[in-house]
Amino acid sequence: MEYVGTALAEMTLPQISPLAGEPIDRADAERLAGVLKALADPARLRLLSLIQSAPDGEACVCDLTAPLGLSQPTVSHHLRILTEAGLLEREKRGVWAFYRLVPAAIGTIADLLTPPRKRATKKAPR
Amino acid sequence: MEYVGTALAEMTLPQISPLAGEPIDRADAERLAGVLKALADPARLRLLSLIQSAPDGEACVCDLTAPLGLSQPTVSHHLRILTEAGLLEREKRGVWAFYRLVPAAIGTIADLLTPPRKRATKKAPR
Repeated sequence: MEYVGTALAEMTLPQISPLAGEPIDRADAERLAGVLKALADPARLRLLSLIQSAPDGEACVCDLTAPLGLSQPTVSHHLRILTEAGLLEREKRGVWAFYRLVPAAIGTIADLLTPPRKRATKKAPR
Repeated sequence: MEYVGTALAEMTLPQISPLAGEPIDRADAERLAGVLKALADPARLRLLSLIQSAPDGEACVCDLTAPLGLSQPTVSHHLRILTEAGLLEREKRGVWAFYRLVPAAIGTIADLLTPPRKRATKKAPR
């Protein structure tokens, strides 16, 4: 099985949450903002949701245009943004590319946005 | 203590996560995208981070302009977007307004973005 097009390997999300109690630096803020921008679009959130709920958790563009009511180029554009952000992985099989979620990437974002009181307390003593 | 300006009461985030295994509808996707857009900005992520790490977890505009290197009107603009999204709450004391995080709102977003395998399994039998 060959996955192509995923930027996950290059995606370096911040190690420190913006809610961790110490200020994040500009570079970390820019990286996290970039991935959140990929998520912050109604069509892209619905795409993630449709792919996640598809049989076997994968879908091709051909499955996604009708439920979204968008053209194939528009859906492909959104899929590319999500793939480049590392949120989807893409596998070419024959003439079609199939997309599935990258749960680790989305989980990392969720962890970064989890307020400290909900996380395991790992605070260093002051 | 009087909190003003928070839109938290009107903020109705989706009840169903885009990763829950059933497609979210257009209205839910738009609401979640709206709040993610408020988050998806480097300056706003740094503001949240600076406020969270401030003494007592609160800060006024006067505390935030220098560390961000932005003008007061620009910082105020970003604070307003975060407040309107329900991510910050604002309390006027004397001539200054003080801002603090709304952990429940941010926690709800984190929960919506948590992949199912990381959540408690509550799947209905097929």
